[in-house]
Amino acid sequence: MFKYEVLKECKQTGARIGRFTTPRGVIETPVFMPVGTMASVKALSPEEVLMAGSQIILANTYHLYLRPGHKIIEKAGGLHKFMNWHRPILTDSGGFQIFSLSSLRKITDEGCRFNSFIDGSIHFLTPEKSIEIQQSLGSDIIMAFDECSAADASYDKAKEAMERTLSWLDRCHKVASRDDQMLFPIVQGNMYKDLRIESIKRTLPYAKCGIAIGGLSVGEPKPVMYEMLDTLKPYYPSNMPRYLMGVGSADCLVEGICRGIDMFDCVLPTRIARNGTAMTAKGNITIRNSQFKEDFGPVEENCDCYCCKNYSRAYIRHLINTDEIFGGRLLTIHNISFLHRLMNDIKQAIWTDSLLDFRNKFFDGYNIKNKQ
Amino acid sequence: MFKYEVLKECKQTGARIGRFTTPRGVIETPVFMPVGTMASVKALSPEEVLMAGSQIILANTYHLYLRPGHKIIEKAGGLHKFMNWHRPILTDSGGFQIFSLSSLRKITDEGCRFNSFIDGSIHFLTPEKSIEIQQSLGSDIIMAFDECSAADASYDKAKEAMERTLSWLDRCHKVASRDDQMLFPIVQGNMYKDLRIESIKRTLPYAKCGIAIGGLSVGEPKPVMYEMLDTLKPYYPSNMPRYLMGVGSADCLVEGICRGIDMFDCVLPTRIARNGTAMTAKGNITIRNSQFKEDFGPVEENCDCYCCKNYSRAYIRHLINTDEIFGGRLLTIHNISFLHRLMNDIKQAIWTDSLLDFRNKFFDGYNIKNKQ
Repeated sequence: MFKYEVLKECKQTGARIGRFTTPRGVIETPVFMPVGTMASVKALSPEEVLMAGSQIILANTYHLYLRPGHKIIEKAGGLHKFMNWHRPILTDSGGFQIFSLSSLRKITDEGCRFNSFIDGSIHFLTPEKSIEIQQSLGSDIIMAFDECSAADASYDKAKEAMERTLSWLDRCHKVASRDDQMLFPIVQGNMYKDLRIESIKRTLPYAKCGIAIGGLSVGEPKPVMYEMLDTLKPYYPSNMPRYLMGVGSADCLVEGICRGIDMFDCVLPTRIARNGTAMTAKGNITIRNSQFKEDFGPVEENCDCYCCKNYSRAYIRHLINTDEIFGGRLLTIHNISFLHRLMNDIKQAIWTDSLLDFRNKFFDGYNIKNKQ
Repeated sequence: MFKYEVLKECKQTGARIGRFTTPRGVIETPVFMPVGTMASVKALSPEEVLMAGSQIILANTYHLYLRPGHKIIEKAGGLHKFMNWHRPILTDSGGFQIFSLSSLRKITDEGCRFNSFIDGSIHFLTPEKSIEIQQSLGSDIIMAFDECSAADASYDKAKEAMERTLSWLDRCHKVASRDDQMLFPIVQGNMYKDLRIESIKRTLPYAKCGIAIGGLSVGEPKPVMYEMLDTLKPYYPSNMPRYLMGVGSADCLVEGICRGIDMFDCVLPTRIARNGTAMTAKGNITIRNSQFKEDFGPVEENCDCYCCKNYSRAYIRHLINTDEIFGGRLLTIHNISFLHRLMNDIKQAIWTDSLLDFRNKFFDGYNIKNKQ
């Protein structure tokens, strides 16, 4: 039911255009996946998510396990029906949220005991439980339960987390039995090249149609992340998508694709939108700023999204400054549309064998430091 | 450019079906007008407001004067263009907001000095200034600048406010010169029948195609409000719409229409929606409650709004309980749709000479105390 075909590859960089067939539809890669943590891409309707160009969205196992509970979603007929999104959904395993959201956690080989970030109640997640929850949710792509070590972890800590991730992967693999759900194993290894290489080598036997790179974009400098991706690149199998978890800035997407990555997700575009920041080809702009008070042009020239076609910077600035929900919604639509458009532009460049040119031009115009 | 025709009248109650022609389109009455205080019906796009069945919306002069400033909206090409809503807009005069939002205010015959609720800065509104602002905004129906006395005001205070409102009306009338904007004068007089009668008699000469009833639903018991409406009813001219300001609960709409009212506005349906309350023919229900945890039915059976067609109570409860913006948005769509549907049902009853039957059946099924 799952298949990945490379339609075109960039000779210089290894970047690819691919067609990822899933039971709920085809995903063209490279792809950015908006995040719907709580079974809702914040502020948007499923129709808007689709109209912005999204092909697949993420949802969070950890959050949905706590609220409303996976059993309720199962009774509702699964996550797709519950949230009225009928295209592919990828759910993470909950591992990363335990790492980033639970102050009290105790990790053993068996699993992870943690306190709910909502009410402090105690829960125990294991690889088997994570898969069981994801089976209740009925997502199309499910993630192996992993341990993500902190960006500044010692070699020994990083190795321990990697070993545990591998042993948990084996257990996930044993219970992830459904044909209509593809299990993506996750490569860990922190910022240590030899661990990354060992991790991917030992992970590959479990990768059927997709492999994920976890534990990056967790606080390390971008060049370090790129170095890790360069380290892993020779080891990727060509016949499956490679998913870089938690990365969503435009510059990182361009750099990631040029290092052979096919899939990305991140809360960044939706989160900064609600805070009044628009992503553009020139870098991020803070619509809240007074310079846009009487700017009646669109957020981004030549953008054909619903936001840019119908509303001005001045109007959106007004909405953001008066805490009107519609302001964050418009910028969310724009930011997601922007990333999807970027993916399409990159595909064009790969089709026409001009990706390196595209990259140069992109970085000439793009202000990474978010100054405008 | 403005015209009001009564298409059908209920003999027993005086309730009417009317066609209110304005430069930006025809409004069928009775009509409920959603409120877009800050140039946005909170959480909704203009398309959603329209799809829910809205024919005209409100915006607030006081709020838009303070932020972003009416001059900016004028430069943007007017409020319709600024907010992308191209049907009729009614703006209030700012009088009521000064009354309800500004802690420090000093009312003189000249006008009203008040402190901004945002930053405490001092402003001075006069009848002339209010009309000037509404002219900058370019709304289709503009309201006279009035003084609203508190529900428990003494007779003398109420009379003073009424006199001032009449003198301000005369000044508004002198400057409200645009053909494409209809000035609605506002009847005041608090809860004193003789003042109400005096107010409407002296107001009528200024009413060209619309008259508003202000100063009700400001804290008095509903029977008192109905009594005031009964008092005014014999004095309404038939050839213009009568607008009861600030009223939006289903029971008050039914009672108001049966007392000859044609137009209503209120923040209630949108405000309680964001708080997790759904309006239904059985009364309001608190979707947040645990009884809806596994309720996979729609918010209201037989409702054909976007919310009810696509989402369950369980899903919306989950969204509301996790502070997901989309939850309030869905309930906002439902609540507005519900009121528009109620207006249509009432029109049907008037067409078929069965309004009193309709009213009886409505109150048989409707729990005013909001218990479910």
